[in-house]
Amino acid sequence: MAKLVPYSSLPTNGGSGSFSYQKNSYYQGLAVNVVKDKVEDAIIHKMDVERLSSTTTTINIADLGCAVGPNTFVSMQNILDCIVRKYRAQCPNREIPEFSVFFNDLPENDFNTLFRSLPKERRYFAAGVPGSFHGRLFPEASLHFVHCAVSLHWLSRIPEELLHEGSATWNKGRVHYTSAPDEVVGAYRARFAADMENFLRARAKEVVAGGLMAILTTGIPHGMPHAMLPAGVMYDLLGLALLEMAQEGVITEGQVDSFNLPIYAASPQEMREIVERDGSFSIEAMDLANPSPWLTGPVNMQEWTNHVRAAMEPLFAAHFGDQAIVDEIFDRLVRKLVERSREVESSYREKIQLYVILRRV
Amino acid sequence: MAKLVPYSSLPTNGGSGSFSYQKNSYYQGLAVNVVKDKVEDAIIHKMDVERLSSTTTTINIADLGCAVGPNTFVSMQNILDCIVRKYRAQCPNREIPEFSVFFNDLPENDFNTLFRSLPKERRYFAAGVPGSFHGRLFPEASLHFVHCAVSLHWLSRIPEELLHEGSATWNKGRVHYTSAPDEVVGAYRARFAADMENFLRARAKEVVAGGLMAILTTGIPHGMPHAMLPAGVMYDLLGLALLEMAQEGVITEGQVDSFNLPIYAASPQEMREIVERDGSFSIEAMDLANPSPWLTGPVNMQEWTNHVRAAMEPLFAAHFGDQAIVDEIFDRLVRKLVERSREVESSYREKIQLYVILRRV
Repeated sequence: MAKLVPYSSLPTNGGSGSFSYQKNSYYQGLAVNVVKDKVEDAIIHKMDVERLSSTTTTINIADLGCAVGPNTFVSMQNILDCIVRKYRAQCPNREIPEFSVFFNDLPENDFNTLFRSLPKERRYFAAGVPGSFHGRLFPEASLHFVHCAVSLHWLSRIPEELLHEGSATWNKGRVHYTSAPDEVVGAYRARFAADMENFLRARAKEVVAGGLMAILTTGIPHGMPHAMLPAGVMYDLLGLALLEMAQEGVITEGQVDSFNLPIYAASPQEMREIVERDGSFSIEAMDLANPSPWLTGPVNMQEWTNHVRAAMEPLFAAHFGDQAIVDEIFDRLVRKLVERSREVESSYREKIQLYVILRRV
Repeated sequence: MAKLVPYSSLPTNGGSGSFSYQKNSYYQGLAVNVVKDKVEDAIIHKMDVERLSSTTTTINIADLGCAVGPNTFVSMQNILDCIVRKYRAQCPNREIPEFSVFFNDLPENDFNTLFRSLPKERRYFAAGVPGSFHGRLFPEASLHFVHCAVSLHWLSRIPEELLHEGSATWNKGRVHYTSAPDEVVGAYRARFAADMENFLRARAKEVVAGGLMAILTTGIPHGMPHAMLPAGVMYDLLGLALLEMAQEGVITEGQVDSFNLPIYAASPQEMREIVERDGSFSIEAMDLANPSPWLTGPVNMQEWTNHVRAAMEPLFAAHFGDQAIVDEIFDRLVRKLVERSREVESSYREKIQLYVILRRV
């Protein structure tokens, strides 16, 4: 009955239309910008470019989960500029090396749009790398800096236990672990831990000794229930909207029960535990940050939903099929968010972005 | 009036529809197959993998002008398998290195189709590299084997002189240098030489000392007029078809005069001269071959036109705009080819494929 949709192979919305990720990802861009100085700090203080120059004439940078731009172009340029500054400071007599930038995302990502919008005046060789970052993507010891922003919260797949009807982990009537029993939360947590382990194991092979990795993902303070976050409120309302649509016969109850968002927010504590258990990287910096300090007034629910839609629509399209139903879901979601705006406005949005700077030991 | 269309940025037909390059490129695949043993010979006899292993743990292979597959996947796998065999033979105690394969084509190429049809069971890391191979694409000394098949006959742009109304190089009423005055042929020849020089200069930077490059392109015996080749007959008929359409008022005469195919067939003599003038590569093997020894019966004009269309349609679409006109052009071309089949059948098709094996000195 309920078919297990392979969520792992669904990218963000391609192209450059009105619901495209290209046009609806400036929140993510601003969120990345919030920790820009942390990334720069890491390059200036933790990257030994003199040591790197002795073994290579090219610096290889990768952006994992790059989507279609434009955020990735800005991040890559910032990192490159900062490495050049570090070269000038640390070894002023040495020639600045050449740079390769590898843009990675799932094979279903819209690389055509990415490639056609590459900055014309770039000072790096650009390549696209299709594949899941939960496995190997690059040759051994080939990367000097890895950037992975607003991507690692995507699980490789939904925990299968969520679909075991009648079990304690059956996630009936919900689309996420927000407001779910501990068993459901636990299934999500275990999936995230396994994904993160695979991610680190692959990167440990690929990153040179002394190379850096900057991770920016969805975070949450240790022990805080996910329902307190704006996204948690949204996922609960999304579940309600779907249940309503099932009651009205637009979709089936089975479709709601079998639909789960493969998204996880990690606490610094669990991230530390996973990284230390892997043992290949040292933690050079880690903290929670506010992804939207610029957001002082009320949330624009339509704009927020557009961002969520651009990032997630393919999941909904694959599960519910009909485009009219997908439109209906997001229309209902906006209406519910407006109705419950007080809940959104009073939700916790300070420290919900986790950044980690790792160094390959 | 006549706008200079930037031919340089037009790829083959994307997607997987009935006129797609993916579905209509098996001629090219067969043509590549004809010289497969030359490429393998070069790897077995000219590639010093022991020397390579001392400086790298990854073998980097590039396919320049790869289009969307599937031919490129077959070629890359053959090259990789052959390098592995060479490793086993030359240094049986050494570990087989990892492989990266870089698939290059213009940014407008359909990389989405390419990435989604990558072989699942590949033993290489795959990356797409968008950009013109007439310029730099890769970091210095980073490539060990370069493959460039059925691509270098594409000029970076049409020679501008062809559009100088009233001049000796004005290519009025023709779409190619076939059956054209010497001045037009000369303009094409000069453009090819300049493109080839840029190509070699870029590759000289990118290929490691001792690295190999296999080029397969459209060839012609020294001194033979292009009108004797099957493609020459086709281009002349294409010119006639367009002139007819202009007389009927479907398109304008100016549109015909300003339309020129950026395609060139090189002789071994001129290729040798260009390579020797550059001086960065030694010629390890070079000859003309028959691209279709398997073709014994009469040519299937529709099938042939489909192949030409898959490779060139974007040029026509950009110049003539209207899809109905493009359809009409190819319909007329097939009819003319059928009418003049005797000319096609009696054209020279023995040594019209040029292969060159180069080694970075």
